[in-house]
Amino acid sequence: MTDSPEGTPAAENAAPHAVSRRRLFGAVGAGAVLAGAGAVIGRVTADENSGTDHADVVAFRGEHQAGITTPAQDRMHFVAFDVTTKSRDELITLLQTWTAMAERMTAGQEATEDGATGDGPYAPPSDTGEALDLAPSQLTLTIGFGPSLFDDRFGLADKKPAALLDLPHFRADNLDPNRSGGDIAIQACANDPQVAVHAIRNLARVAFGTASVKWSQLGFGRTSSTSTTQATPRNLFGFKDGTANIKAEDPNALAQHVWVDPTDDQAWMAGGSFLVARRIRMLIEQWDRAVLKEQEAVIGRSKRSGAPLGAKDEFDELDLDSKMGHDFVIPEDSHVRLASAEELGGIQILRRGYNFTDGSDGFGHLDAGLFFVAYCRNPVEQFVPMQQNLSRHDALNEYIQHVGSAVFACPGGLADGKDWSSQLFT
Amino acid sequence: MTDSPEGTPAAENAAPHAVSRRRLFGAVGAGAVLAGAGAVIGRVTADENSGTDHADVVAFRGEHQAGITTPAQDRMHFVAFDVTTKSRDELITLLQTWTAMAERMTAGQEATEDGATGDGPYAPPSDTGEALDLAPSQLTLTIGFGPSLFDDRFGLADKKPAALLDLPHFRADNLDPNRSGGDIAIQACANDPQVAVHAIRNLARVAFGTASVKWSQLGFGRTSSTSTTQATPRNLFGFKDGTANIKAEDPNALAQHVWVDPTDDQAWMAGGSFLVARRIRMLIEQWDRAVLKEQEAVIGRSKRSGAPLGAKDEFDELDLDSKMGHDFVIPEDSHVRLASAEELGGIQILRRGYNFTDGSDGFGHLDAGLFFVAYCRNPVEQFVPMQQNLSRHDALNEYIQHVGSAVFACPGGLADGKDWSSQLFT
Ligand code: HEM
Ligand code: HEM
Repeated sequence: MTDSPEGTPAAENAAPHAVSRRRLFGAVGAGAVLAGAGAVIGRVTADENSGTDHADVVAFRGEHQAGITTPAQDRMHFVAFDVTTKSRDELITLLQTWTAMAERMTAGQEATEDGATGDGPYAPPSDTGEALDLAPSQLTLTIGFGPSLFDDRFGLADKKPAALLDLPHFRADNLDPNRSGGDIAIQACANDPQVAVHAIRNLARVAFGTASVKWSQLGFGRTSSTSTTQATPRNLFGFKDGTANIKAEDPNALAQHVWVDPTDDQAWMAGGSFLVARRIRMLIEQWDRAVLKEQEAVIGRSKRSGAPLGAKDEFDELDLDSKMGHDFVIPEDSHVRLASAEELGGIQILRRGYNFTDGSDGFGHLDAGLFFVAYCRNPVEQFVPMQQNLSRHDALNEYIQHVGSAVFACPGGLADGKDWSSQLFT
Repeated sequence: MTDSPEGTPAAENAAPHAVSRRRLFGAVGAGAVLAGAGAVIGRVTADENSGTDHADVVAFRGEHQAGITTPAQDRMHFVAFDVTTKSRDELITLLQTWTAMAERMTAGQEATEDGATGDGPYAPPSDTGEALDLAPSQLTLTIGFGPSLFDDRFGLADKKPAALLDLPHFRADNLDPNRSGGDIAIQACANDPQVAVHAIRNLARVAFGTASVKWSQLGFGRTSSTSTTQATPRNLFGFKDGTANIKAEDPNALAQHVWVDPTDDQAWMAGGSFLVARRIRMLIEQWDRAVLKEQEAVIGRSKRSGAPLGAKDEFDELDLDSKMGHDFVIPEDSHVRLASAEELGGIQILRRGYNFTDGSDGFGHLDAGLFFVAYCRNPVEQFVPMQQNLSRHDALNEYIQHVGSAVFACPGGLADGKDWSSQLFT
């Protein structure tokens, strides 16, 4: 928590000190490139007093983009941009600038070489400075391109993945256009929210004149585990969420359900994935009035342990056949049954959502819910049939409402020397 | 991160485990009462993987309410309620219920004795469950009463503190009535945002029929230090914030500027304080275009080190007299000069604000800023003249806009056997 090396006056401030972005620079180096983006490449420090004991750096480059199978960080800031320029070159330049900044920031450095104060008194600082003293906090920045980017503005129509279609209308959707869509998305995840917000803000800043913020969402707590090394968190309905998720430690499941194969679709999407975002308002007042038995029947799992109904332990398999009298133990309209691979001919997705709360709704209630984010190899074949099944039959529908929706094609990870324009524009 | 003791299946989940709310119960006990609310009464655990390494419990009872001089926790959820009942007795009952829940939750327990699943399958759970596996995270809950509560509804007109007046209009105020005022406020601060959100949500839930949420605000990162044990965090303008704040370790300053003396005003406010909340939108795009020299002149401090202009170290004193040629080194319209005790005849306040970001503003920008929270002994004599000086002359005004405003009278801390109705209603 100091921007100066030990021994300087700030050290008098009695707080345990994290390694600063500047000191880190020496330790990790701008050019440090490691195999396999998403791997944690160095526990730098733990600051006992800052709430960020995750000082790790997640590799920016690798076969896949980080932020997908990276063990879900605690906080998220997500932004969707409209591209406002009509110039293909300006868009390419922006993607290149963003890449350089993203690589620096994920390594715990300031957004630019000049930084918050290094470019002299008569220039606007090229980093906004609010993350100056903070650890890297496992920041990942993941980019995706929306269907609208592939219209006739930038000559990308031929590059449009077949699977990148605006999502169809699902039953009971109540979408706000101001929280939906977008030409480009950037997902920032980090264990310190200020690090995630700082990253998005600096990327938005340099986009001025080329792209502008269409919508953004802060997720205050992860509501999925994406790795067997993580405990399962709870969503705002009080249930464990992420138990039956695809985990980073299951390469077969990832290859089958998450990563785009070069033969699938557009070649530029090799090693990439499709991101589906749904802002789901949770009607927590209705939910809170439901009795425990109803809540557990709606989800299909026990509230405290997270075990499937009829089973004992959180990680026991769903037994979809078992009956109690005439009724299935895991009810026919329960969420986990309807979303399960068994029910959906083997379909699975990687969930990576966050709890949100955005003030109140004007009717005496909190505006809170799940910012659902999922990755899959083909949204048309995976997310759409799954959500169709849920939107038609899920008992949960009485307690939720989908209010935002977007889909983005996220290219594979970057090799050395490549940037976020390389895959799409060549 | 488990709700079951070691050895149960959840422990197979490979993650390091924090002490759960249930295990904690045994260790700390519902009745544990310690001298001096705000003192940390036990470092319970540190969960390396959860982002919450502050598993401490902050004492709920004591001479003063916790959450004022408690070293500012990382996150905040703030809510203002309208009382919807006309019954004085119902309001008293709600305050009593809230007290019992607040005391339990700050100790890391479920909101009620029955808890999330203990009251049987045919009852709505009396705790919503999303904090089940989380550590206490230094949760504090601080209550305050707004001017509107002292109208003729509850027979409280005689109890209204003289200093509890709606804030006057300040120059350039652009207040949204839906983000201002309120009969009762509860400030939840914790190092894990899910713990703060859970607390507010459960309090809001049991208020159904008696009080309803008027507005709420999530603060994702603290932007003040309130203790010399804390490093100074940065606000979204990239400057260190809290350097010259009143600190918990300065009892004289607290007695003079923060705690209400029994002789000041209403006797029921003895040991209490007044909370001023201002939602301040920061026009970060304008700010980001300002050159470093301008930014530093506006604040009156150096951006990187936080030192006063003309000085070297963050904690050096402001030298308001020193000149460079005809101009003051710390400019006449700089924020720190205009807000300083020297300029204001000795006035000081305790700042305890949080950075926020609430999506985008519909014009291509992030809606972000400072949720300014301050405590003082008398807002009419402290906050009002300070903000009057700032609103008239502060160079910062070009870059900010006040969009929400509220003031609340926070009673002193609770002795054994007392509850949040005791002071006001007897
Ligand atoms: C607010 C809305 C939602 C809530 C509260 C919710 C909650 C849950 C919970 C508690 C589980 C059980 C634990 C687990 O395995 O993770 C679960 C499982 C699951 N959910 Fe959701 N969910 C929501 C929306 C969705 C949506 C929109 C989808 C996809 C269209 C989805 C797909 C799944 C899948 C695939 C599973 C695993 C099913 C299995 O194989 O056992 N959920 N959800
Ligand atoms: C977005 C709005 C604001 C920003 C960005 C801001 C920022 C800052 C910064 C960077 C400092 C210097 C570091 C420190 O001593 O904490 C400071 C000091 C201070 N601010 Fe603010 N501030 C804002 C609003 C306010 C308001 C509304 C008030 C009260 C009406 C206030 C009262 C103070 C005081 C009393 C000081 C200490 C001055 C001294 O004695 O040196 N600030 N502020």
